[in-house]
Amino acid sequence: MDKRLQQLREEIDAADSELVDLLARRMDISRRIGEVKQELGQPLYVPEREAALIAARRSEAEQRGLTGDLIEDVLRRTMRESYQRQKHQGFRRTGDSERPIVVVGGKGQLGSLFVRWFELSGYTVAVIDVDNLDALAKSVENAALVLVSVPIEHTATVISELPELPDDCVLADLTSVKQAPLGAMLANHSGAVLGLHPMFGPNIPTFAKQTILVTPGRDAVAAQWLLRQFEIWGARLHELPAERHDQAMSVIQVMRHLSTFVYGYHLAHEDIDLDELLSLSSPIYRLELMMVGRLFAQDPGLYADIILSDHDQHRMIRRYIQRFTNLLDVLEQEGREGFIREFNAVARWFGPHAGQFLQESVGLLQHADDVKR
Amino acid sequence: MDKRLQQLREEIDAADSELVDLLARRMDISRRIGEVKQELGQPLYVPEREAALIAARRSEAEQRGLTGDLIEDVLRRTMRESYQRQKHQGFRRTGDSERPIVVVGGKGQLGSLFVRWFELSGYTVAVIDVDNLDALAKSVENAALVLVSVPIEHTATVISELPELPDDCVLADLTSVKQAPLGAMLANHSGAVLGLHPMFGPNIPTFAKQTILVTPGRDAVAAQWLLRQFEIWGARLHELPAERHDQAMSVIQVMRHLSTFVYGYHLAHEDIDLDELLSLSSPIYRLELMMVGRLFAQDPGLYADIILSDHDQHRMIRRYIQRFTNLLDVLEQEGREGFIREFNAVARWFGPHAGQFLQESVGLLQHADDVKR
Repeated sequence: MDKRLQQLREEIDAADSELVDLLARRMDISRRIGEVKQELGQPLYVPEREAALIAARRSEAEQRGLTGDLIEDVLRRTMRESYQRQKHQGFRRTGDSERPIVVVGGKGQLGSLFVRWFELSGYTVAVIDVDNLDALAKSVENAALVLVSVPIEHTATVISELPELPDDCVLADLTSVKQAPLGAMLANHSGAVLGLHPMFGPNIPTFAKQTILVTPGRDAVAAQWLLRQFEIWGARLHELPAERHDQAMSVIQVMRHLSTFVYGYHLAHEDIDLDELLSLSSPIYRLELMMVGRLFAQDPGLYADIILSDHDQHRMIRRYIQRFTNLLDVLEQEGREGFIREFNAVARWFGPHAGQFLQESVGLLQHADDVKR
Repeated sequence: MDKRLQQLREEIDAADSELVDLLARRMDISRRIGEVKQELGQPLYVPEREAALIAARRSEAEQRGLTGDLIEDVLRRTMRESYQRQKHQGFRRTGDSERPIVVVGGKGQLGSLFVRWFELSGYTVAVIDVDNLDALAKSVENAALVLVSVPIEHTATVISELPELPDDCVLADLTSVKQAPLGAMLANHSGAVLGLHPMFGPNIPTFAKQTILVTPGRDAVAAQWLLRQFEIWGARLHELPAERHDQAMSVIQVMRHLSTFVYGYHLAHEDIDLDELLSLSSPIYRLELMMVGRLFAQDPGLYADIILSDHDQHRMIRRYIQRFTNLLDVLEQEGREGFIREFNAVARWFGPHAGQFLQESVGLLQHADDVKR
């Protein structure tokens, strides 16, 4: 029996070596597809093709007695790897190769990501340091785009100190609030103006499937080449007015960062042994601790700037604390019944999303299980 | 060129069909391994074998110019599927087949999960409804195990109403707090007593890699067969005293559920369009919204019981609210500098974990990206 087990394990190893081989071959075909797409100027990420490919393989897998989810997860993971490699091949350029792109703050983390991708697409990029704005006057002379990527507290100043730009130059920024920078850009440049908010950090390996929020300023047509470039990189664009953008961000950014911060702050101030906590944690608790702890490996200045960007936020946060206090009073005075009543009210607000989230989270938590060592 | 693209896409489709075939073959070998293991009574999940298998394939993949992470993710995902199927084959039984296992509350979600797995392992299981404790007297006569799996607010009552159990019967519970139930069990049974806290919900497809916390009560030797059975199912056991268990849970369960709850409560009470919020969300925001929203698709009574289980919790929660208020004062009075000072103090508390979490979260967020449609 032990020998039989040994034999079967050798069969597994042989099958897994075949798997390595097959994935390497697939990656090579993908690379060649990338080359052809680059020549054709076609976008890297084509949702319809991806969906059709996955649907076909799911049904094949189910006929073979496998779950559709298994093959879908494996294919999506493999395609991610292909997207990530694509950047080494470069991308088709949609703008003018003769005219430079100027990135103010292009040495910062997010700025340098954009610099790298513009260069991968064949643009000439001039990187201007925030401390050296004097260099701007000369660089912008013939610029097709001036992209401002500086810490949020410098954005307004930097924009107001920009030299006069060519009329047909696009002025854009990457700040995570949009109303104030957009206003400053419109006041300081008479040509095309665009607010951009990349909904991702500087560490993404590829733009494929990443979202960039676009708040229109002036002359959208003249900025089309830039948006088209982002699409060729694989990004999804979502356009909305600057005011709606800022309202939504006050909830999804400020509240989230602050409540994550306070969770960590609370853990640090309670008398807790983090190692023991981790050894006791099921995947879902571990995942939550991870989402909290990861914040503290990042730049505090960045988070300070987001949280302090707008004084209205503080009123919203005070409302949050007030609700927390009220709820605790409900718990102490009404106990179980009060809790269930309030729970059901929130459940109604989430509507069908709650069930969808629960379902979606199963796959994600299982993935967290998979990698747990 | 378009034709060339078409040809290459056909090559991808052919490679993916081979992939389906290969995964089906691998699943079949795994099934046979499961059969042999069942006969040998060997545990389903062997961390060392898994680690060695993955290391070998990583290095092969890297030689072929793939990343090790790609093959590791694909293999872990595939092995998960194998573990999940294993249960259809049943498991070797470590206890006595002649003597029944009695599960009080075995119709509940978590109870019925254990009932199912005991049955898969060849035990005779008697399921007793909480409303029908009269049936207990007869069922426990020759029982090898009485497992109490009832809502937390009933646990103490149910235990105190148990009839006299055979001296060599193991008495255990599945409650998420441990001191009170363990005390009650020790007072009501003179034989082996064991507190169990499964760190997972009732929807897990397999016990493989799941953690069960074990708080010893009395006569650990006589309960060994039960713990060994959990290990054969693939679970990891983690032993700790009941008091330390309860302290840790007040942080990782109560705080987590409550702060998740209040986050949802706050969103529901602000004037927010959830659909717009989702369409704007990057993977990390979507993930967080998912972790909040999923709570509200679940049973409010379960969460009420956990949060209200212990009055000490309320003091801890008041400290949390107080810290949130203090921090907001720091922000308003000291601004950026104050935030950064407090941030750095928490970062020191997280120590090397913060960086590890950040690194781990990259893979998880990319997985969330993969499945984003």
